[in-house]
Amino acid sequence: MIASFTRVKKLREAMKKEGIDAYLMVNTDPHESEYIPDYWKCVTWLSGFKGEVATVIVTQDQALLWTDSRFFISGALQLKGSPFSLMKLGMTDTILPADWIDANLGEGKVIAGDKRVLFGCIAKKVNKDIDLISPIWSKRPSLPKNKIEVYPAEYSGEATSDRIERILSDVEAHGGKSLFLSALDEVAWALNLRGSDIHCTPVFLAYALLSRDGSKLYVDQDKVTDEVRKAMKAANVEIEDYDSVNLEALRAESSPYNPIQLMKGIKNNVEIEGFRNAMLKDGIALTKFYHWLEDNLKSEGEFVINADGSFGISNEVTEMDCMRKLIEFRKQQPLYKEESFDAIVAWNAHAALPHYETCEESNVPITGDGLLLIDTGGQYLDGTTDITRTIGVGKVSDAMKRDYTLVLKGHIRLASAVFPVGTRGDQLDALARIDLWRDGKTYRHGTSHGVGHYLGVHEGPESVRMEHNPQKLVEGMVFSNEPAIYLGGKYGIRHENCVLVRKFDVEKEAPNATPCDQSEHGDFHCLETLTLCYFDTSCVIKEMLDCFELEWLNSYNKWVYDTLAPHLDESDRCWLSEKTAEL
Amino acid sequence: MIASFTRVKKLREAMKKEGIDAYLMVNTDPHESEYIPDYWKCVTWLSGFKGEVATVIVTQDQALLWTDSRFFISGALQLKGSPFSLMKLGMTDTILPADWIDANLGEGKVIAGDKRVLFGCIAKKVNKDIDLISPIWSKRPSLPKNKIEVYPAEYSGEATSDRIERILSDVEAHGGKSLFLSALDEVAWALNLRGSDIHCTPVFLAYALLSRDGSKLYVDQDKVTDEVRKAMKAANVEIEDYDSVNLEALRAESSPYNPIQLMKGIKNNVEIEGFRNAMLKDGIALTKFYHWLEDNLKSEGEFVINADGSFGISNEVTEMDCMRKLIEFRKQQPLYKEESFDAIVAWNAHAALPHYETCEESNVPITGDGLLLIDTGGQYLDGTTDITRTIGVGKVSDAMKRDYTLVLKGHIRLASAVFPVGTRGDQLDALARIDLWRDGKTYRHGTSHGVGHYLGVHEGPESVRMEHNPQKLVEGMVFSNEPAIYLGGKYGIRHENCVLVRKFDVEKEAPNATPCDQSEHGDFHCLETLTLCYFDTSCVIKEMLDCFELEWLNSYNKWVYDTLAPHLDESDRCWLSEKTAEL
Repeated sequence: MIASFTRVKKLREAMKKEGIDAYLMVNTDPHESEYIPDYWKCVTWLSGFKGEVATVIVTQDQALLWTDSRFFISGALQLKGSPFSLMKLGMTDTILPADWIDANLGEGKVIAGDKRVLFGCIAKKVNKDIDLISPIWSKRPSLPKNKIEVYPAEYSGEATSDRIERILSDVEAHGGKSLFLSALDEVAWALNLRGSDIHCTPVFLAYALLSRDGSKLYVDQDKVTDEVRKAMKAANVEIEDYDSVNLEALRAESSPYNPIQLMKGIKNNVEIEGFRNAMLKDGIALTKFYHWLEDNLKSEGEFVINADGSFGISNEVTEMDCMRKLIEFRKQQPLYKEESFDAIVAWNAHAALPHYETCEESNVPITGDGLLLIDTGGQYLDGTTDITRTIGVGKVSDAMKRDYTLVLKGHIRLASAVFPVGTRGDQLDALARIDLWRDGKTYRHGTSHGVGHYLGVHEGPESVRMEHNPQKLVEGMVFSNEPAIYLGGKYGIRHENCVLVRKFDVEKEAPNATPCDQSEHGDFHCLETLTLCYFDTSCVIKEMLDCFELEWLNSYNKWVYDTLAPHLDESDRCWLSEKTAEL
Repeated sequence: MIASFTRVKKLREAMKKEGIDAYLMVNTDPHESEYIPDYWKCVTWLSGFKGEVATVIVTQDQALLWTDSRFFISGALQLKGSPFSLMKLGMTDTILPADWIDANLGEGKVIAGDKRVLFGCIAKKVNKDIDLISPIWSKRPSLPKNKIEVYPAEYSGEATSDRIERILSDVEAHGGKSLFLSALDEVAWALNLRGSDIHCTPVFLAYALLSRDGSKLYVDQDKVTDEVRKAMKAANVEIEDYDSVNLEALRAESSPYNPIQLMKGIKNNVEIEGFRNAMLKDGIALTKFYHWLEDNLKSEGEFVINADGSFGISNEVTEMDCMRKLIEFRKQQPLYKEESFDAIVAWNAHAALPHYETCEESNVPITGDGLLLIDTGGQYLDGTTDITRTIGVGKVSDAMKRDYTLVLKGHIRLASAVFPVGTRGDQLDALARIDLWRDGKTYRHGTSHGVGHYLGVHEGPESVRMEHNPQKLVEGMVFSNEPAIYLGGKYGIRHENCVLVRKFDVEKEAPNATPCDQSEHGDFHCLETLTLCYFDTSCVIKEMLDCFELEWLNSYNKWVYDTLAPHLDESDRCWLSEKTAEL
């Protein structure tokens, strides 16, 4: 916090020297990434704010930071004692950054910023392109130098040259000629390459140009292995220096139509098979973890005095212990690379913050009664996982059980949805919420986000949200199903699985339906749950489930047991058998 | 059909004489009405097609008529033996009219039409403004001369001057100055006037200009009574000749922002009270009707030879009989004016056509076993009704019962929906469909349309449909809830009530919900069903309803009985008591 004061002071001195009235920053990198390498974490360095979304304006007498609702609570804590005021995006009385500039920085004012990391309407406000942070951030990390790896067709399901051909054919069909890519997951996906420049997301800093006249990869040459060089040559992709990219020229020539998000979102059979493998491995790791957790929460420890003088119980399990243990169990699984995001392990009131950050500063032991929410995922070479479970610890109140069951009903209703081909995600969102709504409750985030295949754990283009998204759900899409409830200061509940959009076979899967001319009703899709981890039935109020829901829950838990059991040792198998017993 | 050939031949002769290559027509009036006065039914006169949506192109060798899916089946029948080809809008292989023109009528071709009734992109194709129909339609009806009536604040809930003030304040807040109205229901609503120029919709042909410099009503002066003249004077509205309107000038000056649809859609307390009265009266009429129907379907008649030589049973009830009887019972109710649309009385396979037109040509007696669908509504001075019931006749098959119950489940799920303030209708649509979808079935029309208050039975701006509609649902909106199923050649089922959007009181209406800080979850709306008519429980498979749905059905039927009983005679009351007995 004191650091932030000193740093802002230095920035203001630099601004004065350069005759700058306001300095603008956005928490992103030149690729507009959600998660960014340390080199680009200027906003965090300056303010102490750690959320992914932030816009900053510093003048001589103001320091403002805008973020969205996910980071209101953690942001307020992180900015406490800093010179920054938190501006809450989406609240009716919060002015937008661009409007604030218009209202407070009139004609003749010098508005500066590092244009490499400013985009859209904010970038347009800047009339002086200058990086004021590098000169004052003496220990600014360097850009990552990690080696890039070839992602073989064995996992991606498509040779690089075929993929480039498919992309360019589609671009041409839409009147374009070449396609310039700056989003890191698009570059990685299009060229079947992976990297490790960004924590939890296997991408690397690069741009790419796809063109029949010769495609190009703009990347720090030090990161390119012989293997990568060979693979790119085979796909007719030249490798150029990262800094040699002429963004303006390439963007001007590029097709405005970009099919990559959608193509990437529709997983091929190899990717789907990979997802299934990754889910199986994750399920094994999670079973071991939850078994370990239950054993350790149950066992009685001894009173001890810790090294730092604090008191505790010798075998107390903390949120951070869970976080570490999850990694330990996942590491035992083949092809595991890293977590797909830092696990959220949140005990009781911590879980009421939808984006609680599990860290040493707020770490607590899991003691007493209540609900423990764990949202976690792994990056395996053959797929990415993302799963949330909420489990009861000690005595779980009736209120907790009611809310647990309501969220589960929503989860089941979406998981079991059948819908006409062409349906959008926003049409299905209410299915996951309607039971909560009847209790006057809701959750202020989407129900689903797309999940990348050994790529970002959040991706588009589809979503299941209250907000309109014109993207239709297409066979092969994989996304999360994560309804939730948050009661501030008390507890949070979220039930999250990943699901796959697949064809629904009316004849086989709706055997009791009235026979009819199916062409009058068209074709249908359904969702297939991929995630393999038991739901804690001890928190369910059975009477609140209808027959269909109860049947779904019991079949799901049975499927989890049947699939995982052959891969578990005797002790884990017995434990899982109890956990998945019919309700 | 032969008429159509003769008429098209005459049109083509006129085209030749004028040097016209193609003549364009759209089935609307100068106000872009959905339902139009006879004078403007040129498309019907020329082609025989009776649906509300049609675009016509006639050349020397082609006669094409485009319509949407609602009219594919009836349209094909009506155009049989005419020179017209039916072009099915929305089918992937159907070219749009504007594209057809571009492809078939190149540079230098003379494309003509009556520009008074051509709008948008079609109007832009026309390079010769001429009415070729009047000269060849010798018995073309004259424009209606019906008197206009003042619609008093007692029913509208708002004095005309207050309403104009409210509209203009809003227009001014959006940067406008005056507002020009050409939609007939907007003119009628804004000025608290009603008419009878259009069948089933109490509007009149007119334009209006709202302005602080003096508002104007453009209307045939013969239709203006002294009372109307007085009311308009009091509201500072001058009356001008219909033909004196300068459309181009007025439209150019008018605010592009038009708040009337939304204002009209949000009913005030007087209108809502009026709706309740109208529903009560309609419920009484419908109870009498369904009682009469059941008695007559049950009684055994005698074999007779009809006047036209056909055979029949003396007391056979036909679809047309039902249509007439509905009007008879409604006429007994105070303030009844007319039907709100021509009733759809559809026996078995007829009901599989969502927009079946009950008429002499297709009339059948209701004999044997099956399902009878009746979609009907009334215009009462204090409100408009729209209701569909499907009832079992004779032996109803298990398949029919299954589908009947599935549609009912959807109806109940939407009827009982609670949702956050700000929710759009398209977010709720899936609630009404999800049970059908699981059987691989759907219906290809919206679940809901707004209902006018003693105005059009179809109005905007809200809807509950699969298609995206950005309009949020607002307290006071009244719309239909009408999921359905159609099995071609077999039967159709639709369950339709009107519902009102109102505040949901979490504390009172969700007494079992976990207590929480409600501000974290926001405010909620719910739907209140207004329509009062029993659902036929004999077609319900009880085991397919969950407890909540069964409870809803029983409470609804009990409420119908309790509310209507005091207004029924002994015989109708006893009969309704049986019909509404707990399932």
